Amino acid sequence: MSARTLDDLQTPALVVDADSLDHNLATMAAALPGPRMRPHVKAHKCTALARRQAAHGHRTFTCATIREMEGMAAAGLGEDLLLANEVTDARRLGRLDARVTVAVDSAATIDAAAAGGVREVLIDVNVGLPRCGCMPDDAGRLADYARRKGLGVRGVMGYEGHVVGLDDRATRARLCEDSMQLLLAAHRAVGGGVVSAGGTGTFDCNRWATEIQAGSYVLMDTAYAKLGLPFRQALSVLATVISVSAGYAVADCGLKALGMDHGNPTVQGATVWFCSDEHITFAPEPPLRVGDRIRVWPAHIDPTVAYHAEMHLVAGTTVQETWPVDLRGW
Amino acid sequence: MSARTLDDLQTPALVVDADSLDHNLATMAAALPGPRMRPHVKAHKCTALARRQAAHGHRTFTCATIREMEGMAAAGLGEDLLLANEVTDARRLGRLDARVTVAVDSAATIDAAAAGGVREVLIDVNVGLPRCGCMPDDAGRLADYARRKGLGVRGVMGYEGHVVGLDDRATRARLCEDSMQLLLAAHRAVGGGVVSAGGTGTFDCNRWATEIQAGSYVLMDTAYAKLGLPFRQALSVLATVISVSAGYAVADCGLKALGMDHGNPTVQGATVWFCSDEHITFAPEPPLRVGDRIRVWPAHIDPTVAYHAEMHLVAGTTVQETWPVDLRGW
Repeated sequence: MSARTLDDLQTPALVVDADSLDHNLATMAAALPGPRMRPHVKAHKCTALARRQAAHGHRTFTCATIREMEGMAAAGLGEDLLLANEVTDARRLGRLDARVTVAVDSAATIDAAAAGGVREVLIDVNVGLPRCGCMPDDAGRLADYARRKGLGVRGVMGYEGHVVGLDDRATRARLCEDSMQLLLAAHRAVGGGVVSAGGTGTFDCNRWATEIQAGSYVLMDTAYAKLGLPFRQALSVLATVISVSAGYAVADCGLKALGMDHGNPTVQGATVWFCSDEHITFAPEPPLRVGDRIRVWPAHIDPTVAYHAEMHLVAGTTVQETWPVDLRGW
Repeated sequence: MSARTLDDLQTPALVVDADSLDHNLATMAAALPGPRMRPHVKAHKCTALARRQAAHGHRTFTCATIREMEGMAAAGLGEDLLLANEVTDARRLGRLDARVTVAVDSAATIDAAAAGGVREVLIDVNVGLPRCGCMPDDAGRLADYARRKGLGVRGVMGYEGHVVGLDDRATRARLCEDSMQLLLAAHRAVGGGVVSAGGTGTFDCNRWATEIQAGSYVLMDTAYAKLGLPFRQALSVLATVISVSAGYAVADCGLKALGMDHGNPTVQGATVWFCSDEHITFAPEPPLRVGDRIRVWPAHIDPTVAYHAEMHLVAGTTVQETWPVDLRGW
């Protein structure tokens, strides 16, 4: 059987450029080797890709859902899994054959962790993003409560999510430091060896966390591409032109194949007009013909990947491997 | 085994209110009985729900993807399936055990239909939405070409997608008529018995189409709810509060559980601040506690449903049935 090429793929299809992926993996491994980086699997939801991260020395992982934790454990990647999120029912976590740590930010989530058979936690601290996380002043009290419940408290986490996407690097660095000072104060009250924080946008300016939870760096998207980071856009959606009219064309990559919360995707050499459920309408330059293939570059990879059952690793036009997106759902 | 209730569901979970669903099905069956309505399955991607539509007399269906066509045929719902979209490779359609009609708007898509073993087509006409569809003046020529290729031409379709969401009913009706005059002119040149058009927003003012392709009416969303239609919002996402802070709370229904192209979802009695991948941050009134359950109402159901593997039919708090969302993917 001859090698599959891009032309053989049913569209819309997630395509990962092998060279760009390797560049991103190697760049991060050089910058933050080993346990300095705890890759966030929510960005790709793919154990085959996580295995590549592990081969680059990153064998501790961050997850956003119980399903991601289960899938990583089942894939043999459970050496040290952090669920960087609160849950009110931890029983599925307690059953995993893996080292499991879960974020807690309240007595209720500590109770749930203990009742579910989880053994280790991080105290999740609000460092400026209005989402999960306790107030920094409450962290020590919660750590004491967790220890009384028999849980091991490994340290703190605090995600500076309001900072990671800021355009200006100096502003990012300054606000990151402000957030991390809050986290370090909480850490002094909590103890433990772990200060877990950060994302792709702060991977190189967050000098206070012991480990960085970056996810997007490995595939990237047009939103993160604006920040001038040393990572390449590796993920695109291959689409087929299905209709051509005067001034515009339509391809079969719609908003059910793309995360739309960051806005429209990008098509090189074209102006994107809008996306419908199964269509993208755009003005190409030069003109296209029905049957032509185009690449659509997502504005936000995480919710894009979550729509697809598989992604294809491609070198040039050759499909090297097809990986299940096996961590979808909850 | 006792009946399952809402409390037993893992969150986030798609919940369909049985009473509202029945109301919507009955209302549409009364307004547009039998083949006057060709329900669009893209809105729910669920053959179990399509079976309910068929039980109400709607046994002809509209699909947006080849995968939807395959799933409907496999479920025994292939009496008359329309793929209301262009494809450049129709071989999977030609293999289906179903009556298959596909939209065409160019010589290339007619060639693809014929080469793929499809036997019947509709000429897709642009009636104002810049997406697929030939210019009205080209419809007759394309129909002739399709017939020379051995295809049966059943008529025309033309989606007034730029009209269906307009707030003002009178404006909707007027612009719908403008679009349908274009479609009827094309129909005179094409022939055949079918004039297929419309959506939930024009189901009762489009008096020119022989059949209406509405989909959203069956589950509804906050965008369509603004139009004052006689359909009820039947679909919500059940979520669990996982964190509570001063002034806001966080639940486990993020933008990977919601279509975001129409904006933020709605939480009754609360102000939604923003959605992250797996979180919704909102200001509730009155205050909530960790572990409380809330309902999140999507702005756009189609891309919401496409993120979920199943939906639960619920009467009061009792889960009556759990249906696979079995038409996802391509």
